[in-house]
Amino acid sequence: MGEHIEKLKNHLKKLAKFESASSLLHWDLEVYMPKKAANKRAEIIGEIAGFTFREFISDKTLQLLENAENEAKTFEEKALIKVTKKEYERYKKIPPELFVEFQIETSKAHQSWQNAKIENKFEIFEPNLEKVIELTKEITDCLGYDENRYDALLDQYEPGLKTSDLHRIIPPLKDFLTNFLDKLSLGNHPNENLLNGTFNIEKQKIFSNKLLKILNFDFDSGRLDVSMHPFTITISHNDIRITTTFDEKDLKNSIFSTIHECGHALYEQGIPEELRELPIGEAASNGIHESQSRFWENIIGRSLEFWKYLYPDFIEIFPQFKDVKLIDFWRSINTVKKSLIRTEADEVTYNLHIMMRFEIEEALVNDKIKVKELPLLWNEKMKEYLGITPQNDSEGVLQDIHWSHGSFGYFPSYMLGNLYASQFYEAMKKDIKNINSLIENGKFNVILNWLREKIHSKGKLFEPKELLKQVTNEPLNPSYFINYIKDKYEKVYML
Amino acid sequence: MGEHIEKLKNHLKKLAKFESASSLLHWDLEVYMPKKAANKRAEIIGEIAGFTFREFISDKTLQLLENAENEAKTFEEKALIKVTKKEYERYKKIPPELFVEFQIETSKAHQSWQNAKIENKFEIFEPNLEKVIELTKEITDCLGYDENRYDALLDQYEPGLKTSDLHRIIPPLKDFLTNFLDKLSLGNHPNENLLNGTFNIEKQKIFSNKLLKILNFDFDSGRLDVSMHPFTITISHNDIRITTTFDEKDLKNSIFSTIHECGHALYEQGIPEELRELPIGEAASNGIHESQSRFWENIIGRSLEFWKYLYPDFIEIFPQFKDVKLIDFWRSINTVKKSLIRTEADEVTYNLHIMMRFEIEEALVNDKIKVKELPLLWNEKMKEYLGITPQNDSEGVLQDIHWSHGSFGYFPSYMLGNLYASQFYEAMKKDIKNINSLIENGKFNVILNWLREKIHSKGKLFEPKELLKQVTNEPLNPSYFINYIKDKYEKVYML
Repeated sequence: MGEHIEKLKNHLKKLAKFESASSLLHWDLEVYMPKKAANKRAEIIGEIAGFTFREFISDKTLQLLENAENEAKTFEEKALIKVTKKEYERYKKIPPELFVEFQIETSKAHQSWQNAKIENKFEIFEPNLEKVIELTKEITDCLGYDENRYDALLDQYEPGLKTSDLHRIIPPLKDFLTNFLDKLSLGNHPNENLLNGTFNIEKQKIFSNKLLKILNFDFDSGRLDVSMHPFTITISHNDIRITTTFDEKDLKNSIFSTIHECGHALYEQGIPEELRELPIGEAASNGIHESQSRFWENIIGRSLEFWKYLYPDFIEIFPQFKDVKLIDFWRSINTVKKSLIRTEADEVTYNLHIMMRFEIEEALVNDKIKVKELPLLWNEKMKEYLGITPQNDSEGVLQDIHWSHGSFGYFPSYMLGNLYASQFYEAMKKDIKNINSLIENGKFNVILNWLREKIHSKGKLFEPKELLKQVTNEPLNPSYFINYIKDKYEKVYML
Repeated sequence: MGEHIEKLKNHLKKLAKFESASSLLHWDLEVYMPKKAANKRAEIIGEIAGFTFREFISDKTLQLLENAENEAKTFEEKALIKVTKKEYERYKKIPPELFVEFQIETSKAHQSWQNAKIENKFEIFEPNLEKVIELTKEITDCLGYDENRYDALLDQYEPGLKTSDLHRIIPPLKDFLTNFLDKLSLGNHPNENLLNGTFNIEKQKIFSNKLLKILNFDFDSGRLDVSMHPFTITISHNDIRITTTFDEKDLKNSIFSTIHECGHALYEQGIPEELRELPIGEAASNGIHESQSRFWENIIGRSLEFWKYLYPDFIEIFPQFKDVKLIDFWRSINTVKKSLIRTEADEVTYNLHIMMRFEIEEALVNDKIKVKELPLLWNEKMKEYLGITPQNDSEGVLQDIHWSHGSFGYFPSYMLGNLYASQFYEAMKKDIKNINSLIENGKFNVILNWLREKIHSKGKLFEPKELLKQVTNEPLNPSYFINYIKDKYEKVYML
């Protein structure tokens, strides 16, 4: 390795250590921090994040990058320069005052969103959201874009993805899903009530730990804790933590939250040490990350084969299911229902929630609609996409945290995650012929090794489009998702 | 507040936030970190601690201090300048290479001490200890001292304390303790076997939490967790965490570890917000800190009145004691025994363990003895002070962690803590006439408020000697400790 490459790496690895500290401060805030420490904690995180940001966009970084550029020989070195430079230029384009203003305004907006949601009044959030959108537009204009302001937003979560890609993908997918929902409504509906009951939290914990163990989550390189909203966070190499949530009245919640976060964590635990602490030692994108969590949660975790393997152990812990047939249990956890809340949506309706958000976001940042029109527009779009109408703003336009954070352009990652997951799964089935029998026998390591080799080990060396091509031999093709949904849900609904 | 004072404060408060991050990284390492993360965690802590150190000894700090010096008007501002300057000058005197070498060598020595203790072979630790002592001496020579090299070491843990103070205090105290132990041996010995048994860990946890609650530990500004060795750590204002340890076969261990750490935590929780993140917003010294933990652990926690209050609740949780009389239980937790291990020593013998360590340390750093002579010397001193001889180095010269950390000069703080605690207690009894009845009725808040007002709220505004004078109206006077021990243990041993 050239001397300048090494210097660049050392600089980036130093900053990564401060980021590790920030991550731990965040994790702790969500899981263990005593409540009176909240204000001071925000200051501490702000100080350290600010330091890391200023160091990253410093002239030192630029100098190190320029020196290292000519030295880059291997593919990995070239990728390092490319990814670091892209990130550097991105942040450098944003004036520091604007960056700070955005931090302050989103932090205020987050507070006001919380109040608005509790009070069930969009008007509380409205002025803050207006400000956040204004600043978001300013930032996109600093970053620049060719066709559509929304492109600049998408790029930070899904490098290389264009708004036009979404306009190409969405209409046929929307048509399919809408028609398919009509078809399902004529089928034999699963008995969702099977899942009603009261489920001891300690038992749910035991089962969550069991799930992580069989799915090969490495407890020596990670932890499971409890928080209000489940999440996965990387503190450092060999320190990948997930949280889940337990609700006595909702067993499904902890099971699928745990598997979902486990999917994220398996990705992070599979990123090689030699890429770590560098911008190439992260996930390829949010969409690819989501493909891993959705793959384990839905394609594996809601499959009949998975429960064939696990159901005896499950019944041992929750004996109230001993008279419930496996097939009925499996059908009930795959109930499809037009519902109001995205995070609780099933596999079939989920993408419709994303599509309407994308439509609204694109219109917002391109000045096609006004913030004050949002509640009405939300309800119209819900009617259009899902045929139902929220009773109030809290279960409507105020349901998601993302806008309060200024995370416009994030939602499409969730949809892409679903599409990527099915496409990866098809490629996987070509390599692993007996996959159903492996799942039925709990041999998840074969599946994990495939993902490790094809996806996890690559870190951020490739953009999502390129990675997808390498792994599946073709560009993004939603028909894999469509076929997966058709095959599975025709069985669930006995069509 | 003058402009320059404010700039100095902002600079120090910024650094304190990085120290908060370091503290959290440390805490997490001891309680929750997955084990494979250890190496990376050491690197992260090293990076952040190194950054904070370099920033603190930077010319910027000096400049800010010099500018602020003339502006200091209030007592607090003057104390801030004085304490910060002393710390700055202290660290500045140590060449950075020497500082780094000391970090590296103590970290190696710590490893080798662990191995030596497991293998029960002092020779494994010997070369590392030699190196650490050599560097310690180099550092003291950079720091400078008037009479005795050991003074430079004492000053970092107990500002203002001289080796000559210890030479004055120790001989009469040693005489008293030795004679008193002879006297106790003729008394009526408590039945220590009352405490034998197996004690459910969950129940011990419940009891530890109960202890913290009645002693007014603020759970909204702190936490209790579990670690191998109990400790207290301040993450930030309103975030003071303690750990304890649970042993199924040893109930005493968790009870008194919890009360001890609670004493430390109550001190930290009482340091005012306006002093926080500044060098004056810490404990006055290690000895004063230890006075608080020993006060609650021993003077309160091992008193008959305390158990009069708590015994009914205790029996409810541990019904195996229902036929044990309160007085017998109290006597058994106050058994005095010449034993090998300092951390397990009772109130009477504890200071003898410290005295022999002080004698050895002073001789070591002043080149009066050689490292290779230590094991024999240790055993001779144990014979001299306590009349017993360790069977091996692990329960002898290798028992304590301190030398592997290079913490020479630390042990005397423990003894001072005991002496301070009794002297504070006497002063407290003058202000709080009905103290025994308060303890019997669990009104610990009156006692805590006294400590808050007199000690905790002062932070590091005063040196220990000055604080002691303010609170008790006289300089350090070991006779309070002597009288406390006499009164109490004549009752325990029915003399």
